[in-house]
Amino acid sequence: MDNPSDACRGELYIVGIGLHPKMLTLEALEAINKADSVYLETYTSPGVDEMTSFLEKIRFGEKITRLTRKDIEEQGAREIINKLRNGEKVCFLVYGDPFVATTHNALRLEALRLGCRVNYVPGISVYHYSISATGLFNYKFGPSVTVVYPRWGIKFTSPYMTINENLERGLHTFVFLDIDEKLGPMTPDIAAKLLLEASTEFEKRNLNENSVVLVLERMGGPNEKIYCEKLGGLPNKRWGAPPYSLVIPSKLHFMEKDVLLSIGLGCNKLF
Amino acid sequence: MDNPSDACRGELYIVGIGLHPKMLTLEALEAINKADSVYLETYTSPGVDEMTSFLEKIRFGEKITRLTRKDIEEQGAREIINKLRNGEKVCFLVYGDPFVATTHNALRLEALRLGCRVNYVPGISVYHYSISATGLFNYKFGPSVTVVYPRWGIKFTSPYMTINENLERGLHTFVFLDIDEKLGPMTPDIAAKLLLEASTEFEKRNLNENSVVLVLERMGGPNEKIYCEKLGGLPNKRWGAPPYSLVIPSKLHFMEKDVLLSIGLGCNKLF
Repeated sequence: MDNPSDACRGELYIVGIGLHPKMLTLEALEAINKADSVYLETYTSPGVDEMTSFLEKIRFGEKITRLTRKDIEEQGAREIINKLRNGEKVCFLVYGDPFVATTHNALRLEALRLGCRVNYVPGISVYHYSISATGLFNYKFGPSVTVVYPRWGIKFTSPYMTINENLERGLHTFVFLDIDEKLGPMTPDIAAKLLLEASTEFEKRNLNENSVVLVLERMGGPNEKIYCEKLGGLPNKRWGAPPYSLVIPSKLHFMEKDVLLSIGLGCNKLF
Repeated sequence: MDNPSDACRGELYIVGIGLHPKMLTLEALEAINKADSVYLETYTSPGVDEMTSFLEKIRFGEKITRLTRKDIEEQGAREIINKLRNGEKVCFLVYGDPFVATTHNALRLEALRLGCRVNYVPGISVYHYSISATGLFNYKFGPSVTVVYPRWGIKFTSPYMTINENLERGLHTFVFLDIDEKLGPMTPDIAAKLLLEASTEFEKRNLNENSVVLVLERMGGPNEKIYCEKLGGLPNKRWGAPPYSLVIPSKLHFMEKDVLLSIGLGCNKLF
């Protein structure tokens, strides 16, 4: 800020809205309610229909502006920053928790650099929710990975390597699946194929066709589903509606196993 | 269940209440509101005063039953299970998220085994909140650790080893600090001393006096504090009120560094 009169007078709320309207926190509701403008980011999660209509009810029928990746990278951030400089309170809403995906740190940093007040309002993320829901122990998770669609002819092998290293250390891995604007949310069979293809290029294959994988569908929603499969069997399965994610478990503690057998479908055949 | 007439007719809600009343979700509020009995677990987190009074307001002035570790291990679980069998709706409230600490899976399992309906209501945990608040990237965290008070003359070295291995892989570590019924919540200086003592027993010392550590105080509350220190300097510092936790960062991405410099106290001297 070169001139003090340029000082940012507005306030930015970067708000996690969880996975379903029932997961909205009091703090999130208050921020959405008192904001001058509300934007909903739609590119890091496919989201659920109930959410938009619920948010619009809180805003007394006002349409919520939905932002694609292109919007925010080309225009959206500029529009938001301008409103902040004009003294507006702006809400930027993100499914789950806003900073589990690293991408929204860019907006936070830009607003902070301009001297705007930035409030982080946490939300329940699919990552954190799923770990607790499955009964797997949080402290036994290594770094998570995202399996992405091949782009520019490149198949990315780093997710495979991280999973393999985690297994080496006895650690579970949470696996996010890519969302492409044209191809849509990646299904578990495509992720399994990509991981198995990558694995053939390496000598030590902790992850292979016989590895057990937990498939998670629509976590946090009223019809969420957790089931156990072998990685090699995924390419022949059919799926319910998105969103999806996977967990590659390492060796289980007996209590992790007991919870999984109680709540996950088909786990008794595999553990 | 030997006899079908013994079937569990009640419903157990294992509810994360977050770090501050503002983090309560709509789902948590509904469960607390409609339950026949409400128990608050007080031994995995020191909690905050505002929470109990807020919870009692929701229950129209009814006192919330607080459970110590001894209560739940000797009596509490039995009392809860009996109420469930009698057809009651019981809320078991936990600061943060109920399954980030592994201990509450025992209650979930016992209720599931008896055929009770068990609902997991997620909450914002200090672990997940802190990672997002600091701007560090979620996918760069290795397994977390808990530094515990020496007990039965044993000093536990496994947290040190996990941190060391994480640093080896370029991963950050979230460090929970023990809470003892008599000694209270462990302060960062004691944790630093224990980690440094453990480190002297090993040859390769990725973690040492010069390692940077983030000290986190009262995260999620109105006067939370994030600051950067050297691990060797912690034993001479003074602290604000609990609760505390630590993060041992590995090599930072430039964006992680930028956010930390914007929000963490004293980080500009150390990075």
